[in-house]
Amino acid sequence: MVSKSMELLMQNNSVIREMFDEGKRLEKIYGEENVFDFSIGNPSVIPPNEIKENIMRILNDESPLDIHGYMNNSGYFSVRDNIAKHLTNTKGVSLEDKNIIMTCGAAGGLNIIMKTLINPEDEVIILAPYFGEYINYINNYSGKTIIVSCKEDTFEPKLDELKEKISDRTKAIIINSPNNPSGIIYSEETIKAISNILTETSKKFGTTIYLISDEPYREIVYDGECVPYILKYYKNSLIVYSYSKSLSLPGERIGYIVVNPELDYLSEILSALNIANRVLGFVNAPSLFQKVVSMSLDLEVDVDIYKKNRDLLYNHLTNLGFECLKPQGAFYLFPKSPIKDDKKFCNELKKFNILAVPGSVFGCEGYFRLSYCVNYEKIKKSLKAFEKVAELFNDYL
Amino acid sequence: MVSKSMELLMQNNSVIREMFDEGKRLEKIYGEENVFDFSIGNPSVIPPNEIKENIMRILNDESPLDIHGYMNNSGYFSVRDNIAKHLTNTKGVSLEDKNIIMTCGAAGGLNIIMKTLINPEDEVIILAPYFGEYINYINNYSGKTIIVSCKEDTFEPKLDELKEKISDRTKAIIINSPNNPSGIIYSEETIKAISNILTETSKKFGTTIYLISDEPYREIVYDGECVPYILKYYKNSLIVYSYSKSLSLPGERIGYIVVNPELDYLSEILSALNIANRVLGFVNAPSLFQKVVSMSLDLEVDVDIYKKNRDLLYNHLTNLGFECLKPQGAFYLFPKSPIKDDKKFCNELKKFNILAVPGSVFGCEGYFRLSYCVNYEKIKKSLKAFEKVAELFNDYL
Repeated sequence: MVSKSMELLMQNNSVIREMFDEGKRLEKIYGEENVFDFSIGNPSVIPPNEIKENIMRILNDESPLDIHGYMNNSGYFSVRDNIAKHLTNTKGVSLEDKNIIMTCGAAGGLNIIMKTLINPEDEVIILAPYFGEYINYINNYSGKTIIVSCKEDTFEPKLDELKEKISDRTKAIIINSPNNPSGIIYSEETIKAISNILTETSKKFGTTIYLISDEPYREIVYDGECVPYILKYYKNSLIVYSYSKSLSLPGERIGYIVVNPELDYLSEILSALNIANRVLGFVNAPSLFQKVVSMSLDLEVDVDIYKKNRDLLYNHLTNLGFECLKPQGAFYLFPKSPIKDDKKFCNELKKFNILAVPGSVFGCEGYFRLSYCVNYEKIKKSLKAFEKVAELFNDYL
Repeated sequence: MVSKSMELLMQNNSVIREMFDEGKRLEKIYGEENVFDFSIGNPSVIPPNEIKENIMRILNDESPLDIHGYMNNSGYFSVRDNIAKHLTNTKGVSLEDKNIIMTCGAAGGLNIIMKTLINPEDEVIILAPYFGEYINYINNYSGKTIIVSCKEDTFEPKLDELKEKISDRTKAIIINSPNNPSGIIYSEETIKAISNILTETSKKFGTTIYLISDEPYREIVYDGECVPYILKYYKNSLIVYSYSKSLSLPGERIGYIVVNPELDYLSEILSALNIANRVLGFVNAPSLFQKVVSMSLDLEVDVDIYKKNRDLLYNHLTNLGFECLKPQGAFYLFPKSPIKDDKKFCNELKKFNILAVPGSVFGCEGYFRLSYCVNYEKIKKSLKAFEKVAELFNDYL
């Protein structure tokens, strides 16, 4: 029989992943073109062509033992050095190779940070709406998740509540901007306010509170929006980055952690992250793709494709009467559900072959998430289905 | 400050990895050609040329969104199906796609199995000499490691001791054959004996005891030796496989778990492994390399190169008077240390620019491990250094 922690997980298995499988099932029945799967954040924009070229170049130019071999658990020196220089040049911070830990995507990065920081019963704060996996990552190390709710009109965190919920057991706070699922970007003002609260409260309790910024959507932003670079605002900060979305490489599991050079206990934490990468079984980030991303620092996917998707779906839904904040980044819409019971509403959507994820999965009941990282034509075809839904829920819109 | 579990880990940080860094340091001082680094199992035989060709073929023939995208957390269906068919054809067992879980190497595989099976205080048995990371993997899930010692002349496990140490808390036993560090292959007789003991004791206690066979060295065998396929001997068995050694791809983090179709609680365990892969942050095995290994099932590295290395080093050391069992597989020698204090002896070796790992790291004090997955010419050059060591320890050999 499986372990108790897994038993719990199996009961609450990822609704998102279930939807993914449900989508495949419906596609078999109704045909792929008639199922509108908005459930999963699987990038639909192809990686830049240069990715393929860069892979070929590496295979042709470098020794296979070096390309596919072991390296320091934190990654190739040259890769970390390149990324540090790139960030130094583009973000206005001063970073060295040792501040970069290559990881198996952001999920790997978050897990090695939790392993490094969390003692059982330590508290980690997350801000609703949040990516549900954070709770699993915190549970993996027997940490305690503390949820801070958001203002319903903006999805910005309630700062008073944040202040109240910080205790002497607070070890870290995870923020995610551009946000999955709301698509909002925390403003510089919000970042400054959070930083001030953390500085004050950690002083008050005589503790260190780490700010972990999960940024897989940093590059997926619209209308000239800019995401504040956390390292400039708070010294005890770490950034978790992934190339899953910015280069459309989610299956390759490649990302990195940036550790603020000003961090309390810096060298101890760096060394612990290195070891955690090994003992958790990641060992190191996949080697070829470390080299690939290192050669691709100036590349990104064509974000305009996502923007076109966003505009089409956002305009249509709001015209139909759905309440929805216009996303500034990422590739999700997070409209208000016409009925409070978001699970029930998502089940209703399924009857129109629309797959969406209930907001309660993200700590926000009464909303639903649509991933618009799908084909534009598919979205166009789905509009009629949404019209029928709007008709059905006309009294509630 | 780091978590308590990491603090402990940092105190006992991998001696092997430290050696790796020490080697790099010595190379800077004495020149790469004058440092004899036998410390780490980093394959020295290049991957088959077809690996590069297969990567190119995949990049040219398949859609980049499929190559680099998300798939089921257990891996691409087609990859799992291919591997299952290949194993069915070559191992005389009957496997389907669902019995295969693609993992981030063997380390990833072992961790998701531990997460799936282990409740705090559950006991996991390992057999000395063992790969030291097993203890970390067990600790990650608050399991308790129980060590069974070996017969000193053969490095085979003491079966009476195994029987004695199984309790009603025993959840699993991890075996590793060909063995790191001893290079021995457990005979069919040993495998049958272990299976019988597990069958008897699990019946006695009314429990299920899982046999986990960690097999990254399955293909690295000499002199026509054969490694028994565990699924044929014990129903509650899982195999953890990796392409790190068989295809020289350790940096790529690609391997798989085979779950015996006869396993107790099969579907529950399969589902839990799938979820564990996700929540531990692996998400899935790196996507491109899933496809690469699926196209490379009949390939392996040129094992004769390792055999030549083995013979050169083994013959030289035994001629010098070192006691050593001739390895049947893997790429390690595990000679007896001339003095009981193996750490002290390894420090002595370092004075001759020879890097070796003390046997106590593997639960066998009084031995030392030499990884002969290094360049043949380098081994040749090291022979003089070993002669000097033998001279110094002449009275103890």
